[in-house]
Amino acid sequence: MNHTDKISVGIVGASGYGGVQLVKLLLEHPGVEINYLGGDSSAGKQYTSLYPHLTNRVDLNIEAIDLDVIADRCQIVFLGLPNGLACQMTPTLIEKGCQVLDLSADYRFSDLETYTAWYKTERQDQAIAVKAVYGLPELYRDKIKQSQLIGCPGCYPTASLLALSPLLKQGLIAPETAIIDAKSGTSGGGRQGKINLLLAEADSSLGAYGVANHRHTPEIEQICSELARQEVRVQFTPHLIPMPRGILATVYATLRDPGLVREDLITIFSAFYRSSPFVNILPSGVYPQTKWACGTNICYIGIEVDPRTSRVIVMSAIDNLIKGQAGQAVQCLNLMMGWEETTGLPQLGFYP
Amino acid sequence: MNHTDKISVGIVGASGYGGVQLVKLLLEHPGVEINYLGGDSSAGKQYTSLYPHLTNRVDLNIEAIDLDVIADRCQIVFLGLPNGLACQMTPTLIEKGCQVLDLSADYRFSDLETYTAWYKTERQDQAIAVKAVYGLPELYRDKIKQSQLIGCPGCYPTASLLALSPLLKQGLIAPETAIIDAKSGTSGGGRQGKINLLLAEADSSLGAYGVANHRHTPEIEQICSELARQEVRVQFTPHLIPMPRGILATVYATLRDPGLVREDLITIFSAFYRSSPFVNILPSGVYPQTKWACGTNICYIGIEVDPRTSRVIVMSAIDNLIKGQAGQAVQCLNLMMGWEETTGLPQLGFYP
Amino acid sequence: MNHTDKISVGIVGASGYGGVQLVKLLLEHPGVEINYLGGDSSAGKQYTSLYPHLTNRVDLNIEAIDLDVIADRCQIVFLGLPNGLACQMTPTLIEKGCQVLDLSADYRFSDLETYTAWYKTERQDQAIAVKAVYGLPELYRDKIKQSQLIGCPGCYPTASLLALSPLLKQGLIAPETAIIDAKSGTSGGGRQGKINLLLAEADSSLGAYGVANHRHTPEIEQICSELARQEVRVQFTPHLIPMPRGILATVYATLRDPGLVREDLITIFSAFYRSSPFVNILPSGVYPQTKWACGTNICYIGIEVDPRTSRVIVMSAIDNLIKGQAGQAVQCLNLMMGWEETTGLPQLGFYP
Amino acid sequence: MNHTDKISVGIVGASGYGGVQLVKLLLEHPGVEINYLGGDSSAGKQYTSLYPHLTNRVDLNIEAIDLDVIADRCQIVFLGLPNGLACQMTPTLIEKGCQVLDLSADYRFSDLETYTAWYKTERQDQAIAVKAVYGLPELYRDKIKQSQLIGCPGCYPTASLLALSPLLKQGLIAPETAIIDAKSGTSGGGRQGKINLLLAEADSSLGAYGVANHRHTPEIEQICSELARQEVRVQFTPHLIPMPRGILATVYATLRDPGLVREDLITIFSAFYRSSPFVNILPSGVYPQTKWACGTNICYIGIEVDPRTSRVIVMSAIDNLIKGQAGQAVQCLNLMMGWEETTGLPQLGFYP
Repeated sequence: MNHTDKISVGIVGASGYGGVQLVKLLLEHPGVEINYLGGDSSAGKQYTSLYPHLTNRVDLNIEAIDLDVIADRCQIVFLGLPNGLACQMTPTLIEKGCQVLDLSADYRFSDLETYTAWYKTERQDQAIAVKAVYGLPELYRDKIKQSQLIGCPGCYPTASLLALSPLLKQGLIAPETAIIDAKSGTSGGGRQGKINLLLAEADSSLGAYGVANHRHTPEIEQICSELARQEVRVQFTPHLIPMPRGILATVYATLRDPGLVREDLITIFSAFYRSSPFVNILPSGVYPQTKWACGTNICYIGIEVDPRTSRVIVMSAIDNLIKGQAGQAVQCLNLMMGWEETTGLPQLGFYP
Repeated sequence: MNHTDKISVGIVGASGYGGVQLVKLLLEHPGVEINYLGGDSSAGKQYTSLYPHLTNRVDLNIEAIDLDVIADRCQIVFLGLPNGLACQMTPTLIEKGCQVLDLSADYRFSDLETYTAWYKTERQDQAIAVKAVYGLPELYRDKIKQSQLIGCPGCYPTASLLALSPLLKQGLIAPETAIIDAKSGTSGGGRQGKINLLLAEADSSLGAYGVANHRHTPEIEQICSELARQEVRVQFTPHLIPMPRGILATVYATLRDPGLVREDLITIFSAFYRSSPFVNILPSGVYPQTKWACGTNICYIGIEVDPRTSRVIVMSAIDNLIKGQAGQAVQCLNLMMGWEETTGLPQLGFYP
Repeated sequence: MNHTDKISVGIVGASGYGGVQLVKLLLEHPGVEINYLGGDSSAGKQYTSLYPHLTNRVDLNIEAIDLDVIADRCQIVFLGLPNGLACQMTPTLIEKGCQVLDLSADYRFSDLETYTAWYKTERQDQAIAVKAVYGLPELYRDKIKQSQLIGCPGCYPTASLLALSPLLKQGLIAPETAIIDAKSGTSGGGRQGKINLLLAEADSSLGAYGVANHRHTPEIEQICSELARQEVRVQFTPHLIPMPRGILATVYATLRDPGLVREDLITIFSAFYRSSPFVNILPSGVYPQTKWACGTNICYIGIEVDPRTSRVIVMSAIDNLIKGQAGQAVQCLNLMMGWEETTGLPQLGFYP
Repeated sequence: MNHTDKISVGIVGASGYGGVQLVKLLLEHPGVEINYLGGDSSAGKQYTSLYPHLTNRVDLNIEAIDLDVIADRCQIVFLGLPNGLACQMTPTLIEKGCQVLDLSADYRFSDLETYTAWYKTERQDQAIAVKAVYGLPELYRDKIKQSQLIGCPGCYPTASLLALSPLLKQGLIAPETAIIDAKSGTSGGGRQGKINLLLAEADSSLGAYGVANHRHTPEIEQICSELARQEVRVQFTPHLIPMPRGILATVYATLRDPGLVREDLITIFSAFYRSSPFVNILPSGVYPQTKWACGTNICYIGIEVDPRTSRVIVMSAIDNLIKGQAGQAVQCLNLMMGWEETTGLPQLGFYP
């Protein structure tokens, strides 16, 4: 790549946390140039009025969302909008020749009935939707390379699926025993003024939410079912943790072969992710801390087996806004463009 | 007191953080019974729908604000409303025979022009306002005992004035050198969904706000001027700290007599607050932590002298929602009712 | 009770977090007087040098541990020592007529072989150990009333067992499916300078520890087995959460009768805990936040059923240092003395 | 630079927080290769056993400190040791031809008597010490370029001096009025198991320490005096803030010319730092948040003037471990090597 070859990218919905991660990552990415930041409620504002830490670094305004303008100016479009909006814009953008990476739930489901059942939105864009690829590179690397439309995974599904995939793909667990107890920092709730996300309320506290009915459940189940080649139902329980970023998924499942030991599984996981530069399988007895992953696109995975109960416990830690959102989208972009998968993506966090 | 003698109290503006502290303190107070909780936006809701931790403990609904109903049902009314509303309700409540403790800024100023200049609200209730007493018991205990209307101090002024009062009253410092660098937990911003108060934004961060123009400045100056018997201007800078509760005021001033040492000042402060059960003067070399004060009505004060610069540094720590708000109001209530000043008020925090 | 009847109590191991909670609770308890604070490493120090927030409130020194002195001065002795020490002191104290409440693991096991297997300590005090009662009042209220020696439960077992007991006792779940995903604030690690408990390391982070081998596992299993009248093995995974206090246990189990709905279970739990003033069963759709429990002796329990998976999910929240430790010990003391079970115990937290 | 030209660097004292920042920055720096990590207490251990997040990324062991080995293997040596050790090693390293960047206080003082008075360590290395340059590039860029020995500034002095320098250099303030109220995250206390740095103690709390006698005071005063061309005494008060990283210095001083307004000072500061890529002067009315600086080598500066008091208030925010420590050392290295000052240094933080 050289500077004259930089690809022109735009971000629709740049004012949220996903948007500002994309801005940071794309500013430092050698292959792209940001030429459009869009948003409705904040149209007309300087981007630095929303994010003053970018003062003297970003000189872009938020513009109104106009698909003609976007398509005219950008080859790549990231959509970071509330669920139900991307599916209205994407057909036009695709038609005009853009490549689209959608960070909402709109293009994550191969079965739009599932989408409609859980998201209460009727869909008119079946023709486009069937072409979307689920943007989890560790599972769908080759398809992503060929795709024009990526449905980027949710943050919880990313952590959950990276923990479960080798187990399900290799048939090592009884799928119906899978329980995902997930814990997320509060930035997952978005940049909106909700009472329960206030520091005064959320700090020094902890609780579950969306028990037995969180929307990430069908997304996880879709991919699990594909991997297991049978319909899989998982138990998924998210919790809000008093920290800004990071997700830990603690995944429980019963082993089909109770003779498997921890080291066997570490070997299997390591082999499964051999070509995945952003999955770091930890050695025996080391369990991941979310802080290790924060500020990086890495998923850390620790594995334990309990011979008393014949269960495997897999713990996976990611930065919910990077590997769980914007970083993964850039990872997909790298694949789509034929660039090194790691281009422009942080692999080493600051600690502590 | 016996149960049949319980005083009937009401809280207008019960849905905020000041309100819920009052509810907790008054539920455990032996002399009162809560008979009214009022609020506009949440009228009709069960109180526990706002604060589910009170489930099975509080069985009251939020009612619309109707002054007749309130006066009919309550002898004591706490007003916990945004600035500019108490001054519209109080004249009626007083006329109907209620005693009023206002937690807003409306009755803190003896000079209503100062109020109007800083709060941009014209006032029609001069006749009532002149009778209000500034509810800082450590300075105005006797007046509070006689009063029907208390303007409860702001949280920052409480911490600042308890640190400055002995120095100014005894003429120990050059008043114009006083600098108050104050730090507050985020609950001081109220129970409202502001972006800058989100855990994702406020946690792991720190910044100043309202520099050189925070509204608590004239409130502090009014009392300082009275104590110093001259017009005093202070430098007051508040900071937002990543924690739910607590205020620390670090107060700097130049000593008039550079020969004073730390122990002298500890003696002077201890004498000044001898009859004040809620001020705890720390021994030599001990500086307060806000956590010590949290969950109590105590103000911890630590004192240092820098002989190199002839400055005194006073650090005062309070719980912004208790001694800085609801607890202080109950302390005033105790004085108004002729009860022990400490009745129903926590003096010992949990630690850590 | 009147003041002349106050019971004399002592705390051995008063310098830790459990110790200082006991000091706070017992200072405010109407029935007792603290006459001894003991510790080895800190013997000779003023208690306030360890906990300066108690300045001007506590005037006691830490004394060396001398069983004769303790027995001479105290009727009730709380032991808050590392595991393996209480079992050396208790026989003497009991013999001298003291009543002992031990906060370590030493007297939690009816089967000392289990204790020795997990705690690597041989025991010589079988004769005394068999008389110990497991100090969970919600299950063993009557035995506690009669006992001279209480083995107070661990913090995790308290939260876990209060969530599981109604299910196991009534035979509602398949016991071997029970998974406890527990989350604790860092004060559970004690007042010791461990790197992983530093704010710089533990804040903004989250991780599991002791996976498949935490010592609270056999303690939980002992009581579960008794309730289920069969040997039960549970999966127990603790996590360290970036907050000072509080535990949430998220408990999963498969229902034997898939027809049971959430409301059925709420009814069953409410009945089970009808006489337990410190268990608060939340209404349908409300899940507990640990912050609600902090500063109280309450256990909040929320219940969900997932008809898709036939699992029940029970969430229980406690303050790990109060209901999980010192408060529960005082609750046991109240029962032993024939006092109201709630005497001197906080039931209402500050919020936020 | 190309790979064959990579400069060989070593870090003595790599196990602390400064060390691990250096490791991260130098791993990603295009001009260097880490060939030695040294430490005494952890000698022989794998570096990843101390910092498991570096698993599969760093394959180095901590080695014992042997000056011959170090000098043999490394052209550049970073010393991250407790105060008083660098001055014993540096003469040998310099003699052997190494260039040394010391992160301790040992080479920060031009007057070793001041060092000995505050650090209680006699010095035998005057000949070397006089050649040391104070490693604050914004003030001493040219000297650093020529130097073989850098005394890297303390974290508080960095934040304080960047706020004060333009004011003192231009004679805009009365130097004796300067008060620095500084606030730091707890990582400034180092990776050691101190009780007051535990999350359980430090979280949700705030307090001052080292009031009137912190060792960074003479370091700040030395540079201030040089800038003001007169002896300057400052008031410096550090506070511990419940967050892992970040420093905010709130600096107060009385303006000599009360007619100066905020915009004047913004212009003056912007000019002063025109050639300093790591100082970001904020526009009118914007005050820095420490979080903006975290993960970067940037110092954000906000400026306010209070016409009521004729004071200027300057707020400067840095990451204490990067611009306050390891990043600044790398910035000095870049200058010493003749590389771009910004090489390998992060300029854009993740937010939130």
